[in-house]
Amino acid sequence: MTVNQIDPPARLLMGPGPITADPRVLRAMSAQLVGQYDPAMTGYMAEVQELYRGVFQTRNDATLLVDGTARAGIEAAFVSLLAPGEKVLVPIFGRFGQLLRDVAERCGAEVHVIEREWGSVFTVGEIEAALREVKPKLLAIVHGDTSTTVAQPLEELAALAAKHGALLYTDVTASLGGNTFLADAWGVDAATAGLQKCLAGPAGSSPITLSERAVEVIRSRGATIRSNYFDLAQILDYWGPTRHNHHTEATTMLYGARECARILLEEGVENAVDRHRVHGAAMASGLVAMGLTLFGDQSVRMNNIVAVRIPDGVEPDGIRATLLADYGIEIGTSFGPMHGKVWRVGVMGYNARKDAVLTTLAALEQVLRRAGVSVPQGAAVDAALDALQTEG
Amino acid sequence: MTVNQIDPPARLLMGPGPITADPRVLRAMSAQLVGQYDPAMTGYMAEVQELYRGVFQTRNDATLLVDGTARAGIEAAFVSLLAPGEKVLVPIFGRFGQLLRDVAERCGAEVHVIEREWGSVFTVGEIEAALREVKPKLLAIVHGDTSTTVAQPLEELAALAAKHGALLYTDVTASLGGNTFLADAWGVDAATAGLQKCLAGPAGSSPITLSERAVEVIRSRGATIRSNYFDLAQILDYWGPTRHNHHTEATTMLYGARECARILLEEGVENAVDRHRVHGAAMASGLVAMGLTLFGDQSVRMNNIVAVRIPDGVEPDGIRATLLADYGIEIGTSFGPMHGKVWRVGVMGYNARKDAVLTTLAALEQVLRRAGVSVPQGAAVDAALDALQTEG
Repeated sequence: MTVNQIDPPARLLMGPGPITADPRVLRAMSAQLVGQYDPAMTGYMAEVQELYRGVFQTRNDATLLVDGTARAGIEAAFVSLLAPGEKVLVPIFGRFGQLLRDVAERCGAEVHVIEREWGSVFTVGEIEAALREVKPKLLAIVHGDTSTTVAQPLEELAALAAKHGALLYTDVTASLGGNTFLADAWGVDAATAGLQKCLAGPAGSSPITLSERAVEVIRSRGATIRSNYFDLAQILDYWGPTRHNHHTEATTMLYGARECARILLEEGVENAVDRHRVHGAAMASGLVAMGLTLFGDQSVRMNNIVAVRIPDGVEPDGIRATLLADYGIEIGTSFGPMHGKVWRVGVMGYNARKDAVLTTLAALEQVLRRAGVSVPQGAAVDAALDALQTEG
Repeated sequence: MTVNQIDPPARLLMGPGPITADPRVLRAMSAQLVGQYDPAMTGYMAEVQELYRGVFQTRNDATLLVDGTARAGIEAAFVSLLAPGEKVLVPIFGRFGQLLRDVAERCGAEVHVIEREWGSVFTVGEIEAALREVKPKLLAIVHGDTSTTVAQPLEELAALAAKHGALLYTDVTASLGGNTFLADAWGVDAATAGLQKCLAGPAGSSPITLSERAVEVIRSRGATIRSNYFDLAQILDYWGPTRHNHHTEATTMLYGARECARILLEEGVENAVDRHRVHGAAMASGLVAMGLTLFGDQSVRMNNIVAVRIPDGVEPDGIRATLLADYGIEIGTSFGPMHGKVWRVGVMGYNARKDAVLTTLAALEQVLRRAGVSVPQGAAVDAALDALQTEG
């Protein structure tokens, strides 16, 4: 087999993630390595901690990276917080809620779930009723679930969890940086993320933040944590002043994570959230103007992703394949009950931009037209431009 | 806090790893992302599998990457192969053997160990006696342990393990690419690695290969595997023809892992091993000629690292700090019983080169001289050049 130097095809990634990385992040990742305990490296680690405090909107000392994809952060949080047999309540409203259930089950926790139809979110009352009944140690819920595009409002959940003696964990992989998230103001005990959505980087590093209460729980578990790699007590010591050796930090991913946060804070978190809101709304307006129907409760839609019902009579994957082959544009398929029913269009991170939105709409109009769908000429682009003018 | 674009100081990393990455690997990692199921991406995944078959010297279909550092690969192998209560035998001859014990214990396995003084390796007889007594499901042993610089000969162990009904796992993080390793010819059932040693990349991706027997064991465990992230049955399905969704592959790390293997195979694995042997021997000759004493059984020393006793009367970390501050050269400290007694000098990956060896020896001579150690002028460089001329 002859394998050449890597040369990926040009793509505009408008799916649920990964999305096109910000070129500045990729440039940062081409920087040469330094040693694990080089003063430069420990300095970068300290910078990363402070930068992600800004991203998570927290003063939590325990703010750091887990070396793996977003799912690694979830598992690190669960296996470190939950002893076997302890109760966790997982309200599920999409695929990533199902993931939380599976991760918690494999940690040996006693998992209780409540479920909501995909496309909707829970009321505070529903969650409180379950908390009262289950009395879990941990309430674990996804913030924004890309499988359905909606985000569970979290503002009241931490106080509710605390009232019932539980910690609140939330997976903000899909939402962080593109939707308001206030770890401290909302009282979140643990949150984990990934880089490949609104943070505009590649998958492979999972930012995590832990409240003092969460850290106490983890510290009290010590060597009973059922994982070495995901033992947050050891990982905290590695990132902390003792720098106790654990894994060898994934230097290049750390460079990337640092740049993701640096450019987000340079823009300002609120500005970035607003940019996602405005461009996501423009995409939604454009799709509606094209005659398509949106999926999911739009009052709680994440800023950075839109699900749209697939029009009758077209082959769902064929449209996506043509968009990719002829225009280099990727939009997303869907999972579980949504499969074959909706496409998911991401407007996130580096691609939450006017040209990305308009190019996607223009290309989709052409692909649908040639597939025999009756679409009004230019209506999508006009509606998106109007939305941008109103909102921008 | 103002954080600027990353700009690491110039370093020549001659420690136990990470070492200076090959610039081609860093360039590959700056390539733009493609989608998770883009034909380009699944093509890269297939290439990575085939490339690492070459690196591991195997025809194992189950050859792929675990998304995390080398320790993630170890944990994925253990948690997927070992059910709670199953017996594993871990012969320990250094720090990474201790790590294997800890990972196995946290997986709930019944862990049996035998131990050897650091700097030595086990005889086949010692391992067979323990296999006979313990009757483990898995024999798990480090190949080359950077903490002591020696490598356990593996040629006879797989047959021995099979004779006693055990699978053989080995951690080749520190050795792969710089020392002969023949997964199939030796009959290894599972091996895991990292990129940050002889493969000349950054930490953050763990190549792994599994024999058919190992895959059968993993497949039989199914949902009882006590981890979602490290569930190799699911990870195999993600890399296999069904492409069943698991994590979002760490695209940039995959690009890097691909380039590490590509350039290694371009050079030829045997040539790369020989390059490590020649330059490691030159470093060892130079250090001896400087009047220093090597540590560990030199007959089984890894090609890519040399441990040297710290001369009396110098402050170990002070010498290292000066070497770093004044010459930009990093050499390694040491762990456990070796701490404060030896420095570890790596000659690996991109830095298994004449100029890296000579520059390190020249600088160390100056730093030791200024610290009051009597070192013969030029002897180290002369000995290294002589060794290179003889061997090169």
